[in-house]
Amino acid sequence: MNIPKSSYPRIVIIGGGFAGIALAKKLSKQEVQVVLLDKHNYHTFQPLLYQVSTGGLEPDSIAYPIRKILKDFPNFFFRLTNVNEINTEKSNILTDIGDLKFDYLVVASGSETNFFGNSEIEKHSMAMKTIPQSLNLRSLILENFEEALLTSDLNERIALMNFVIVGGGPTGVELAGALAEIKKGILPKDYPDLDTRLAQINIIQSSDCILKGMSENASKKAEDFLEKLGVHIWKNVRVTNYDGKTVTTNTDLTFDSATVVWAAGVKGVTIKGLDAEEFVTRGNRLLVNEFNQIKGFSNIFAVGDIACLVSEEFPNGFPMMAQPAIQQGEQLGENLLNLIEEKPMKPFVYKDKGAMATIGRNKAVVDLKKFKFQGVFAWYVWMFVHLFFLIGFRNRMVVFVNWVYNYVRFDREARLIIRPFKKKIKA
Amino acid sequence: MNIPKSSYPRIVIIGGGFAGIALAKKLSKQEVQVVLLDKHNYHTFQPLLYQVSTGGLEPDSIAYPIRKILKDFPNFFFRLTNVNEINTEKSNILTDIGDLKFDYLVVASGSETNFFGNSEIEKHSMAMKTIPQSLNLRSLILENFEEALLTSDLNERIALMNFVIVGGGPTGVELAGALAEIKKGILPKDYPDLDTRLAQINIIQSSDCILKGMSENASKKAEDFLEKLGVHIWKNVRVTNYDGKTVTTNTDLTFDSATVVWAAGVKGVTIKGLDAEEFVTRGNRLLVNEFNQIKGFSNIFAVGDIACLVSEEFPNGFPMMAQPAIQQGEQLGENLLNLIEEKPMKPFVYKDKGAMATIGRNKAVVDLKKFKFQGVFAWYVWMFVHLFFLIGFRNRMVVFVNWVYNYVRFDREARLIIRPFKKKIKA
Repeated sequence: MNIPKSSYPRIVIIGGGFAGIALAKKLSKQEVQVVLLDKHNYHTFQPLLYQVSTGGLEPDSIAYPIRKILKDFPNFFFRLTNVNEINTEKSNILTDIGDLKFDYLVVASGSETNFFGNSEIEKHSMAMKTIPQSLNLRSLILENFEEALLTSDLNERIALMNFVIVGGGPTGVELAGALAEIKKGILPKDYPDLDTRLAQINIIQSSDCILKGMSENASKKAEDFLEKLGVHIWKNVRVTNYDGKTVTTNTDLTFDSATVVWAAGVKGVTIKGLDAEEFVTRGNRLLVNEFNQIKGFSNIFAVGDIACLVSEEFPNGFPMMAQPAIQQGEQLGENLLNLIEEKPMKPFVYKDKGAMATIGRNKAVVDLKKFKFQGVFAWYVWMFVHLFFLIGFRNRMVVFVNWVYNYVRFDREARLIIRPFKKKIKA
Repeated sequence: MNIPKSSYPRIVIIGGGFAGIALAKKLSKQEVQVVLLDKHNYHTFQPLLYQVSTGGLEPDSIAYPIRKILKDFPNFFFRLTNVNEINTEKSNILTDIGDLKFDYLVVASGSETNFFGNSEIEKHSMAMKTIPQSLNLRSLILENFEEALLTSDLNERIALMNFVIVGGGPTGVELAGALAEIKKGILPKDYPDLDTRLAQINIIQSSDCILKGMSENASKKAEDFLEKLGVHIWKNVRVTNYDGKTVTTNTDLTFDSATVVWAAGVKGVTIKGLDAEEFVTRGNRLLVNEFNQIKGFSNIFAVGDIACLVSEEFPNGFPMMAQPAIQQGEQLGENLLNLIEEKPMKPFVYKDKGAMATIGRNKAVVDLKKFKFQGVFAWYVWMFVHLFFLIGFRNRMVVFVNWVYNYVRFDREARLIIRPFKKKIKA
């Protein structure tokens, strides 16, 4: 890969997510050469993907060009590529566009949807971890409504309007809330000849509560909010298969559905050559020490979702969310500079800023460290925090305009089938 | 197709472009049943497609859900489908989703890129008539910059950064202006390791002036603006072929280019069964009389780009632009109601509101009927008119925010490769 040689040590970061970008920013204007590799040329603000899927936001406003984030940093290089393999002995990375030597390597490759090895579910259900996936889901939802209009078979129409969301974490809950609002606000206007009552939204949760990582109050209130919106929550039910028509479970329950969203888990994206059994742990994450060093290496690190840093409070690693990723990225930036200057590194300490989820209009649940609240105020807090953390002034403006519009008009205008999903897989 | 039977006469409109939507709006709240068929579920504001291709606007803000435009109209039905054939004898339309009888039929199928039968050019060059096409072009431009970084072959790098726009009409001119601004404002910041001077923008025009349909002043000034922006205009040159690598012309000129945009002409989209030689004329358009009736029919009409209405002032039909389409759609709406009530129809009279084109920041040319002007004021007029005609308050707001941002920051943030174009055609 044609990265110019430099007298500065070269730090290669794989992945431009929350962790990778936070780290790169920390390294700016320092005496290091930074090479960031990503298969997309943009950073994705994943917490708002569900709004892209449900027509509330345009994809462009929750993405941000990576080159632009880092444009003022000298010694910074971005390359758009897949990473295929890492040769740790030779400190060499193999990519689609050539090899690259590193002095320090940071794996920030993030996570992907975990289908737990069920290839039939993987083939037929929708994931929502990237912008193209979210756009596919948007197309599918709209295509299914169009198709529901055409069929004279009532069972088929019911299946086309029956949404099954597997997993009651923040993603599943927020998506369910948005779909419930579409059912209430948009369906009757856009499809006056469809019986809106047929549209059903189901969350299937394997354990006995939704929003498992949050407080009991948040979980109960979220359930309450969802039920008021008409969402069915099926607890202690585990999905066993989905053949493209019927969702089967470990109980007698089955669901005929044309739209199944798999939000039941994620797993780390490991890279060949850096996938030894000794450090690949639960959920395909890489076990790291308190300095985010991967076991057995002094110059290879992992941060964000892919990293599993075990602590007393979090024996399975930190939750796979934005906050731990950003904090690890920032801390590692400092530690790398310390390491290069032969100063001691500081152990990572996670500052838990809490968690939140929104369940549609005026409804959210927020768990801060000392203060937990639900309802309208929580909803404002949710919006403010998301606007604040979104990268880019233009994105914030456009998202703000959309949110105000959607709120005032009870609408979501980005309901466009720009790239049909069904046709594509048929043709 | 399961459209309910009605005691009202059924008017079927094929196409939800400017003409089709204007017509449907006129027929709202009247004693007719309207069925609109389109292969997209959204209306496209085509005049701004070039801004999507160049990262200035998100696609969602120049599209608008058709169902939403017509949501308050009773007796209105939209169906998402391809139209395959028209049986004029049986007054029947054959589509992907079943047959449909009509009492009145309006063909508003618009136009598509005209490659004049050259399949090699069609295969290798980019069109820009639809949102997916514009997004493909956006991806290709950005992918080529990324690739230019990687190659050590100077000729390849030059070709990757060499843009050839075939056709100096409004589309070609506006695209060239936008690319010139990317070269000046974005390329040096995003790709500090690329030699910006290699980026060349060429317009190839077969006749002796650009913006041929506009005044001589507008044409000359546009040329002037473009040359100041560094765009090369090659007049009296006709492209003979493009094999994916080299553009050949009827002169000695050749261009090695990885990005060729074909904006050299459009042709009507005719439909099987309604393509008899007696009324298909120049540019694949359907010859209509002053009431927009297709020759030989009393209940089949054509409006917009697909219609060729010959008048003294326009012996080849009206220009294929938004204004004639909107006016014809509106007039036909009145005429259809007259026809149904057995009143006389009014002949269509075109009110020429002029033409305009923008050539980047602070530069536009405007030809009104009595007043022609160029420069900054023209640019404001251009923006105001485009915002005004854009459908939807949210779209206007989002486009406005983007324009202000882009203007103040010399930027275009939607430079995202969301669906790679090259990879797709390779894999």
